Amino acid sequence: MLSDKNAPIGVFDSGVGGLTVAREIMRNLPNEKIVYFGDTARVPYGSKSRDTVVRYSRQIVRFLQTQEVKAIVIACNTASALALDTIEKEIDIPIIGVVKPGASMAIEATRNNRIGVIATQSTIKSNLYQTLIGQSNPEITVYGKACPLFVPLVEEGWTKDPVTVEVAKRYLKELMEKDIDTLIMGCTHYPLLRHLLQEVIGDHVTLVNPAYETAQALKRMLKEMDLETEEILSEGCPEHRFFASDGVDNFSAYANTILPCEVSSTGLVAIESY
Amino acid sequence: MLSDKNAPIGVFDSGVGGLTVAREIMRNLPNEKIVYFGDTARVPYGSKSRDTVVRYSRQIVRFLQTQEVKAIVIACNTASALALDTIEKEIDIPIIGVVKPGASMAIEATRNNRIGVIATQSTIKSNLYQTLIGQSNPEITVYGKACPLFVPLVEEGWTKDPVTVEVAKRYLKELMEKDIDTLIMGCTHYPLLRHLLQEVIGDHVTLVNPAYETAQALKRMLKEMDLETEEILSEGCPEHRFFASDGVDNFSAYANTILPCEVSSTGLVAIESY
Repeated sequence: MLSDKNAPIGVFDSGVGGLTVAREIMRNLPNEKIVYFGDTARVPYGSKSRDTVVRYSRQIVRFLQTQEVKAIVIACNTASALALDTIEKEIDIPIIGVVKPGASMAIEATRNNRIGVIATQSTIKSNLYQTLIGQSNPEITVYGKACPLFVPLVEEGWTKDPVTVEVAKRYLKELMEKDIDTLIMGCTHYPLLRHLLQEVIGDHVTLVNPAYETAQALKRMLKEMDLETEEILSEGCPEHRFFASDGVDNFSAYANTILPCEVSSTGLVAIESY
Repeated sequence: MLSDKNAPIGVFDSGVGGLTVAREIMRNLPNEKIVYFGDTARVPYGSKSRDTVVRYSRQIVRFLQTQEVKAIVIACNTASALALDTIEKEIDIPIIGVVKPGASMAIEATRNNRIGVIATQSTIKSNLYQTLIGQSNPEITVYGKACPLFVPLVEEGWTKDPVTVEVAKRYLKELMEKDIDTLIMGCTHYPLLRHLLQEVIGDHVTLVNPAYETAQALKRMLKEMDLETEEILSEGCPEHRFFASDGVDNFSAYANTILPCEVSSTGLVAIESY
């Protein structure tokens, strides 16, 4: 495999949620160029089957390969949980997801060996957080809870709303009864609810944002593989590119509320043809 | 055009919501066979663009044509609002949507000429209910409100929940201030919230369920076109068939909670290839 160190990093998600991961990469690897793809025509993935999520992820990886990326980050918990295993065997560029970094961070954070995971239905059903954490430390118990209303509540903009507080109380109740001391926000939308979740669950619980740890894991991986960019910027942002499969104008507008670098336009991709 | 009177009727939706329309067809046209397709791999449509919804609807119509249907019902408000116009020009079998029947019913129901429509973002943005009602009676004013949280709340099963009551109060507030006397439930999931919506908005407002009126419109159309089936059942259900693009087992299970006829299995369709 011959990779161009100065090539961009491919980052993809089912939609806009993965922009929180792109944001962490921009903050922590400020010289690396990103090619972001959001599958807004088929969002969400969180209620869909493994076969479907694998098929969609494969198409996106093929698209990112046409953009000559040097590495790929699956910035979507559901696709990381359902498709990473399969896809990493099929391609010859390095690829990481958000689940493993999130799991590692939670293992470091817990003191009482009781970890909660909130995520989409498909991520919870995959049991991947449980499996990875259990393999690393069998003494830790992981409690999962699917929270399907959080994504639509975030997308409605109700991130500080009493309705969302009530929904969070309902969803978190059983995890609180299990006396967890660490909670993995296992869906890229959830960090946008961070303050509300912390308030509901209490200060004694450490919230884990896999997006941050994923950026750190990417940094280590690029260093180990000698793939760090040689293009060092003194100021500003490198040339990131953004693509989506639907609603590109809304995508750009939303991305500009999340990212530290300006998104001037988003390209429309007919992802079904890849 | 040579159609077999005894051929089935194609009914499609972005997912399971259109089953409320299939139910009304089963109740009101008990001898007609249905071929139902739910696009569960790409659900929801309500936040997606016209181009994408037209592309998806075309693929589904092509699939239904392979099932030799004699007529098609778009049992999805968003696809009816965004794609019916385009598709009816492209095919030679009769096709109807749910928007026009819903609009007609609301025009008949209103006494004070103030009608509210609740629907997905894309349906509201299309302004189609407004346009159709305005063309028919310019004295009627139509007020639209997108309610993106209703579908996930229904899918979570919270159809009688205080959280849903609070969300409904929020969404319906501005329509109530406009003094509407008729409310169109412009998304196929919403009739499952009928009782809750009626309680929040008050008994003086007539709730319009386009699903019922669509079944009546279909009945009239089949009669006018001499397409009514000749196969008359003395008891039981005709041989309906069900297809979806993902999660077929969940689909069957859910369909059996909605429909008067048993769904023994659902076929998986790779809809992207049509």
